[in-house]
Amino acid sequence: MNVTSLSLLLTKIQDGTCSIHEALDQLQGFPEESIPGACIDHQRQLRTGIPEVILGASKTVEQICTIAKALFKKGGPVIVTKVDPEKGRQIQKNIPDLLFNSEARMLTSTQSPQNNTQYRGTTVIVCAGTSDIPIAEEARLTLETLGHSVETLYDIGVAGLHRLLSRQKILHQAAVIIVVAGMEGALPSVVGGLVKCPVIAVPTSIGYGTSFGGVTALLGMLNSCVPGIGVVNIDNGFGAACLADAINRR
Amino acid sequence: MNVTSLSLLLTKIQDGTCSIHEALDQLQGFPEESIPGACIDHQRQLRTGIPEVILGASKTVEQICTIAKALFKKGGPVIVTKVDPEKGRQIQKNIPDLLFNSEARMLTSTQSPQNNTQYRGTTVIVCAGTSDIPIAEEARLTLETLGHSVETLYDIGVAGLHRLLSRQKILHQAAVIIVVAGMEGALPSVVGGLVKCPVIAVPTSIGYGTSFGGVTALLGMLNSCVPGIGVVNIDNGFGAACLADAINRR
Amino acid sequence: MNVTSLSLLLTKIQDGTCSIHEALDQLQGFPEESIPGACIDHQRQLRTGIPEVILGASKTVEQICTIAKALFKKGGPVIVTKVDPEKGRQIQKNIPDLLFNSEARMLTSTQSPQNNTQYRGTTVIVCAGTSDIPIAEEARLTLETLGHSVETLYDIGVAGLHRLLSRQKILHQAAVIIVVAGMEGALPSVVGGLVKCPVIAVPTSIGYGTSFGGVTALLGMLNSCVPGIGVVNIDNGFGAACLADAINRR
Amino acid sequence: MNVTSLSLLLTKIQDGTCSIHEALDQLQGFPEESIPGACIDHQRQLRTGIPEVILGASKTVEQICTIAKALFKKGGPVIVTKVDPEKGRQIQKNIPDLLFNSEARMLTSTQSPQNNTQYRGTTVIVCAGTSDIPIAEEARLTLETLGHSVETLYDIGVAGLHRLLSRQKILHQAAVIIVVAGMEGALPSVVGGLVKCPVIAVPTSIGYGTSFGGVTALLGMLNSCVPGIGVVNIDNGFGAACLADAINRR
Amino acid sequence: MNVTSLSLLLTKIQDGTCSIHEALDQLQGFPEESIPGACIDHQRQLRTGIPEVILGASKTVEQICTIAKALFKKGGPVIVTKVDPEKGRQIQKNIPDLLFNSEARMLTSTQSPQNNTQYRGTTVIVCAGTSDIPIAEEARLTLETLGHSVETLYDIGVAGLHRLLSRQKILHQAAVIIVVAGMEGALPSVVGGLVKCPVIAVPTSIGYGTSFGGVTALLGMLNSCVPGIGVVNIDNGFGAACLADAINRR
Amino acid sequence: MNVTSLSLLLTKIQDGTCSIHEALDQLQGFPEESIPGACIDHQRQLRTGIPEVILGASKTVEQICTIAKALFKKGGPVIVTKVDPEKGRQIQKNIPDLLFNSEARMLTSTQSPQNNTQYRGTTVIVCAGTSDIPIAEEARLTLETLGHSVETLYDIGVAGLHRLLSRQKILHQAAVIIVVAGMEGALPSVVGGLVKCPVIAVPTSIGYGTSFGGVTALLGMLNSCVPGIGVVNIDNGFGAACLADAINRR
Amino acid sequence: MNVTSLSLLLTKIQDGTCSIHEALDQLQGFPEESIPGACIDHQRQLRTGIPEVILGASKTVEQICTIAKALFKKGGPVIVTKVDPEKGRQIQKNIPDLLFNSEARMLTSTQSPQNNTQYRGTTVIVCAGTSDIPIAEEARLTLETLGHSVETLYDIGVAGLHRLLSRQKILHQAAVIIVVAGMEGALPSVVGGLVKCPVIAVPTSIGYGTSFGGVTALLGMLNSCVPGIGVVNIDNGFGAACLADAINRR
Amino acid sequence: MNVTSLSLLLTKIQDGTCSIHEALDQLQGFPEESIPGACIDHQRQLRTGIPEVILGASKTVEQICTIAKALFKKGGPVIVTKVDPEKGRQIQKNIPDLLFNSEARMLTSTQSPQNNTQYRGTTVIVCAGTSDIPIAEEARLTLETLGHSVETLYDIGVAGLHRLLSRQKILHQAAVIIVVAGMEGALPSVVGGLVKCPVIAVPTSIGYGTSFGGVTALLGMLNSCVPGIGVVNIDNGFGAACLADAINRR
Repeated sequence: MNVTSLSLLLTKIQDGTCSIHEALDQLQGFPEESIPGACIDHQRQLRTGIPEVILGASKTVEQICTIAKALFKKGGPVIVTKVDPEKGRQIQKNIPDLLFNSEARMLTSTQSPQNNTQYRGTTVIVCAGTSDIPIAEEARLTLETLGHSVETLYDIGVAGLHRLLSRQKILHQAAVIIVVAGMEGALPSVVGGLVKCPVIAVPTSIGYGTSFGGVTALLGMLNSCVPGIGVVNIDNGFGAACLADAINRR
Repeated sequence: MNVTSLSLLLTKIQDGTCSIHEALDQLQGFPEESIPGACIDHQRQLRTGIPEVILGASKTVEQICTIAKALFKKGGPVIVTKVDPEKGRQIQKNIPDLLFNSEARMLTSTQSPQNNTQYRGTTVIVCAGTSDIPIAEEARLTLETLGHSVETLYDIGVAGLHRLLSRQKILHQAAVIIVVAGMEGALPSVVGGLVKCPVIAVPTSIGYGTSFGGVTALLGMLNSCVPGIGVVNIDNGFGAACLADAINRR
Repeated sequence: MNVTSLSLLLTKIQDGTCSIHEALDQLQGFPEESIPGACIDHQRQLRTGIPEVILGASKTVEQICTIAKALFKKGGPVIVTKVDPEKGRQIQKNIPDLLFNSEARMLTSTQSPQNNTQYRGTTVIVCAGTSDIPIAEEARLTLETLGHSVETLYDIGVAGLHRLLSRQKILHQAAVIIVVAGMEGALPSVVGGLVKCPVIAVPTSIGYGTSFGGVTALLGMLNSCVPGIGVVNIDNGFGAACLADAINRR
Repeated sequence: MNVTSLSLLLTKIQDGTCSIHEALDQLQGFPEESIPGACIDHQRQLRTGIPEVILGASKTVEQICTIAKALFKKGGPVIVTKVDPEKGRQIQKNIPDLLFNSEARMLTSTQSPQNNTQYRGTTVIVCAGTSDIPIAEEARLTLETLGHSVETLYDIGVAGLHRLLSRQKILHQAAVIIVVAGMEGALPSVVGGLVKCPVIAVPTSIGYGTSFGGVTALLGMLNSCVPGIGVVNIDNGFGAACLADAINRR
Repeated sequence: MNVTSLSLLLTKIQDGTCSIHEALDQLQGFPEESIPGACIDHQRQLRTGIPEVILGASKTVEQICTIAKALFKKGGPVIVTKVDPEKGRQIQKNIPDLLFNSEARMLTSTQSPQNNTQYRGTTVIVCAGTSDIPIAEEARLTLETLGHSVETLYDIGVAGLHRLLSRQKILHQAAVIIVVAGMEGALPSVVGGLVKCPVIAVPTSIGYGTSFGGVTALLGMLNSCVPGIGVVNIDNGFGAACLADAINRR
Repeated sequence: MNVTSLSLLLTKIQDGTCSIHEALDQLQGFPEESIPGACIDHQRQLRTGIPEVILGASKTVEQICTIAKALFKKGGPVIVTKVDPEKGRQIQKNIPDLLFNSEARMLTSTQSPQNNTQYRGTTVIVCAGTSDIPIAEEARLTLETLGHSVETLYDIGVAGLHRLLSRQKILHQAAVIIVVAGMEGALPSVVGGLVKCPVIAVPTSIGYGTSFGGVTALLGMLNSCVPGIGVVNIDNGFGAACLADAINRR
Repeated sequence: MNVTSLSLLLTKIQDGTCSIHEALDQLQGFPEESIPGACIDHQRQLRTGIPEVILGASKTVEQICTIAKALFKKGGPVIVTKVDPEKGRQIQKNIPDLLFNSEARMLTSTQSPQNNTQYRGTTVIVCAGTSDIPIAEEARLTLETLGHSVETLYDIGVAGLHRLLSRQKILHQAAVIIVVAGMEGALPSVVGGLVKCPVIAVPTSIGYGTSFGGVTALLGMLNSCVPGIGVVNIDNGFGAACLADAINRR
Repeated sequence: MNVTSLSLLLTKIQDGTCSIHEALDQLQGFPEESIPGACIDHQRQLRTGIPEVILGASKTVEQICTIAKALFKKGGPVIVTKVDPEKGRQIQKNIPDLLFNSEARMLTSTQSPQNNTQYRGTTVIVCAGTSDIPIAEEARLTLETLGHSVETLYDIGVAGLHRLLSRQKILHQAAVIIVVAGMEGALPSVVGGLVKCPVIAVPTSIGYGTSFGGVTALLGMLNSCVPGIGVVNIDNGFGAACLADAINRR
């Protein structure tokens, strides 16, 4: 339940087009709804701007379907992250209204119209290598589902710096930039030294040996010599999108 | 050299009130200036919004003074972070225009006028415990030196939740919130679950035993169940302020 | 062999209803019994209150069956933890008296009657998210098998604080509270700041990236700003139940 | 403000022996009081059983004195932990009512009378080596300040097992046992295998090389083969005492 | 080639029963022999007492067979460690003279006669839990293949101390004791405090959560309060046997 | 595109044998070419000496084929590292010009002629054990594909030192030595103490328990008592070859 | 109290030269003696061969003196390890019978006569560099105090291998070898590959950067490709000596 | 003793201008010389190109002086690294021929003439920030003492990329480049992507919080997306210089 739908409901009560009885029915599960194995926070979008989202990684197909249906009933949007292909297939069979994006490993309900006037500008998502694209796509799909306009610059890591330098114009026009990188995670420092807008860094688990599943990239980003880069958890493209959303909101 | 001073100079050249000779003299050291032991990036504020700032921790008094004087000559502002009291005293004796704030462990030149119209709103700085205040103050002083309006809520950690809940109104009015916490670093999750604006989390090195000099707080913040919290390095109040500055800029 | 059964046996010897020969037969394997691959501590319940329990994770089906049968012969109860579904099926086929709970991943013999008078009150088990439920269930099933009365509050993490605050009454009536949480592990701090009874924290391996298989949650719990929280190993719902049992015993 | 003093006040209001005006004056700072650098949670003892306690390690003498005086004004008790000798001397000079215990590194106001009837029994504190005594004393002094009866068994580590085995009777009579150990931290497992009451384990930072400042002892305790041991942070004798207090309260 | 076989050869040359030509043929590959993918150190037993042994974990079936055959040709013994069942089956089919022990996960050629007079006494192998038995068996099988007399005490961990204390006589008669334990690894400290002979500790990867694949047990053993325990790598039952062999040799 | 092919093209333009139109066509994608999921740096060989190489580990078969084809179109060479057998088979079926080396887990196009005069001498690759050979082969195949002359000394670890000492002559004739070792990683120190030429150390993930996937070998190499050993990432035979290439180039 | 003194006492009782009264007086504190802050295990030498030894690192001068005097009263020997020079001076002033060795940082009472017939042979102590000597000396002094014959080979690390190879004869004559090394800790592998006797490895905290206070050396030693090396804690020269003592005892 | 001096000596013996007696005297201590607390490897320069160098960090003034004097007697050069100012002063007073460089924290005897024809070209040393200069200077001073020609580019980190890009010409002319950087250690990747010559990366311990004393910079360098960067230990400017020396030697 977001501010638009809640306002509408309250207005209808006020002008008598909705009975108290109907209203209570719609408000059931507000601010929270207990279903088997979950206590859904239907007030979250109203309170924080981002609706309750399902982290799919450690949930069963049954748990995800139960929660998704409860969210659908309240008008969505429904976003499920970290869904492996097999799980994705099973859930989509169960809830055909959810689309599975196999690269971003996400299930989403319909996207909001982009270039939504409630946002200040475009989010640019930069990623260092081909292998980082799934996490970049998780961020892109989340933002577009929420109605943001997104531009992507993929595979332009620091080993071939000219690829980045020749695209500075796009960077300078961004309202916020998300930089996704694995291995040594140097790209956010280089981007951050070139622009004025907020930069969000997402370390990925790409690499081997001492990449330690993304810890090296994370540490590099936290210790950037460019001050003011906001870092999120390893592989957390979704979290980066949420921060970008909050920054970009008017 | 920021956009204002550079525009002014170029205008003067255009209208003939400044000779090419004088302009070259002023532009000397632009975009960079090599001095003994440093290569100052005078173009940085123009490029990234934040001027070159001196990390005092691992520099000698001589190095700091040399760089600070070069920055002063170009019109400042001068900010030096992580300065211990003894170093602070010696530098201030050498450069009386720098003020030493012993709680924030910073040296700063004069602050910009606050409530600057270039910013969108107030930054609220929340800290969990009394021992976290120095890092919170580092953020506050940085922001105020850059012209931001700041409000602080100190010592309102989650052990006594009512202290935070009774101040929700201040949180809801913030343009951006910086949350500073050591130990288990739970405060950003609790704050982040209550507000819509961007939340920046700063882990501090406060605690003992398995606090591991702030690593525990950092990990807690990176793994927050509230999506979209931007995390900076341990004790990096300055970095949090820089991110808040970029977010809060119009 | 617990205190009741041992007392009974000794009484029977005293009043002559049990011959020395029969008694020796029953006491065979007391205080310990060597079987292939194990040396069972049949005296443990008498000594520590908790019977010898089988950690199933690194044992073969054969090892588990051998030990379980030896425990059954002495009157149980039999508890096997960390049993994956395939192992569970095989063991249950072999020993039909053992029930397999697939969510808690445990095999248990019959439960004791709850609300047993030997305990002081109800144990409340709180868990942060849907994914933490299996570990919470491990604690619940252990306690109920031992005769405790348990109440559960699931999926009420700190991202939606109202879910917890609205259930404070249940928390205040608990004799002991077990809090199960993964990710940043902030829930025990919030619960601990609201109640007087002992709080036991169980970190879970839920999360990704820097959750480090539960280490982040563990560290958060050990560094709680609320003093006096007792922490157990990651995913150790069983251990939490044992501590709750000891606390709750009269 | 604890339940006794609050009840008294409310009774006086009820029977008219205290005016509303006087009551408000006494309730000032309830549930919280903002002083420079701190926001004291005067409601904490009422809510959690343990009053707000000052962690001295990372606070200045001035901060400690300010908070301690505010606590004294409300009737105490005042407990300051992790105070080094030099700080302790300075604070005691400033607030003579605080006693400094140099072994436990604590400042405390007067102790409650021991063998308080609100507690169920005696707490036994066991420590492994001479070097662990300061942390054991931190636990003892905290408990005695809160009115508990305590018995101590010091320097009885597992290298000479007979020292522990010959004292089993004392262990069996305890309501709760705190075991303090550094190095490999094996003592809680051995104690826990012998008793029925709750066992709390406190790892200490004693040792060198791979003792890693207590991490080895901590890990040993978390992985005890005896289930149900509650572990607190390294060197956290105070936290162990708080958990013992909650367990031992009727 | 060991000292016996080399002496025999040299004697035969001396007394003319072996021609120089035949001797050179037998000495081919001494001190080393290059085969595809390996450079076998046939001199090793002569030099260090332990023959070249094949660590099977990261070798292919082909590599193991090639090396094993080369060793067989020189008179063995052949020992292959860390062999998973599937690999074991394939190798045994290829080289029927190798016996596969599925519990110890080893392939061995025929054992030497035990109670060999070159050794000083019996090695006692103690293990803490049922799950530690495979590593204990790796040590036992290695020692018996080398001709040692071994006695085993399995599943007598510190949670039920009486199981160990009642077997002290066996411990006191040992020439050397190997203690195998996972989880908190406390058993070597307890054993070491009771005996005079050298104690070798083997941490195992048994446990979950913070057992960290045996690191916790390893750290516990390295920090034992009983001085003089020799520690080997995690799960290195073979290495423990080699050290016992060197100690036990006359 | 390397310096030879680029010079040839420019010469042809100069002497009129290539039209501007044809030249532009050939230079398309220089310095970079955007294809789906990648932005290929065709200028890299010209700039750094090493062409763009595909790290196969975290890329899909489709991604690898798309990039490989784009590289082939520009004249190669094509090198793909860290390719598991199944992926290798699928790619080779798709692009028959790529050869799959199952030991080195690499796909390569045709090799340059060896003993190329642009290099100063022979690279010697030493490896400690049979299990380290795959990484050594990754280095060898990379170097030979680039036209280097390579000599290998495999399975000559420090446990049988004579194997190394008897091959010192080969070491002394090397232009550069790559030492590949897992477990304790001691071999580079021993080699480095015997020779004058640059030594490159490659830790491998071989070992178990505290080998920590190669971290132990890496740390050993970084802390070598022989100064001046250059270390690369764990299992990075390819990186070692690149450094050897740069050193060996005239 | 060791076996000699105890036998003597019992013989005297038997033949009447010692009264029961006198015997009880001498046996006071057997098997243990409680003094302030310690519970001395006077039975330890009898039980384990090594007397109770004082780890000086984390004890106060007062604690050390109290325990040392109690040990002296029972006939010693007295050994205190890890004593810094300032502490050493103060204790020696207090107990003139204790000698302070500033290199080994130990206090010891008189040494036993060397070449004691109860031992099998000479212990050789090898150390890698000049900086490792203090830990090597800790081992030497412990062994000589217990009556062992010791030979030392110092500063013969693997960077100059000829220094070790030219001393092989000494190594081959040893009953047991202790190898002390910091940095990469490679020396035990090289020594272990050359000899038959048991090898004990002592990592030292020598080095910087990634030597991590000796962890790198420790890991190298645990992962030695030479099987059967017994490892002790970082800087634990004393522990190595105790293991050598147990091995070397007849 | 280097190859020049040894050749000279042998020539003199051959032509009779040096008697066997005199030669033996000069060769005394070749290949090694035992002095108290050290066994000097006088053959090292002959064997590896780099003379024996004294790591000053963990040696006493006495130890350093003894070794330095022995090296001087053989004709030097003498290099002592990691010497703190106080130690430096004391040693210089004792051995006036050693010069103390307080920035590089080194003592050195006279430098070889630069632009020595035995080297192939110039070494360029790049450092990221002012605080990294001491380690860069350690590398510079080592190289110049050995006769190399060095050029330095200091304080040109990636936050202001133009500082590096405008100096590419110097980079392209280098025979080998040493890049020194702390914090996130991104500079070697950026430099490595621009040049053909070998790049050596030196992480420094500069930074705070999660820089972990240089570990973050080290990990970043090991995981560089630019293949072929050789990495040395944290703060090991000396080691980098030794590798550059080996690479640069003809």
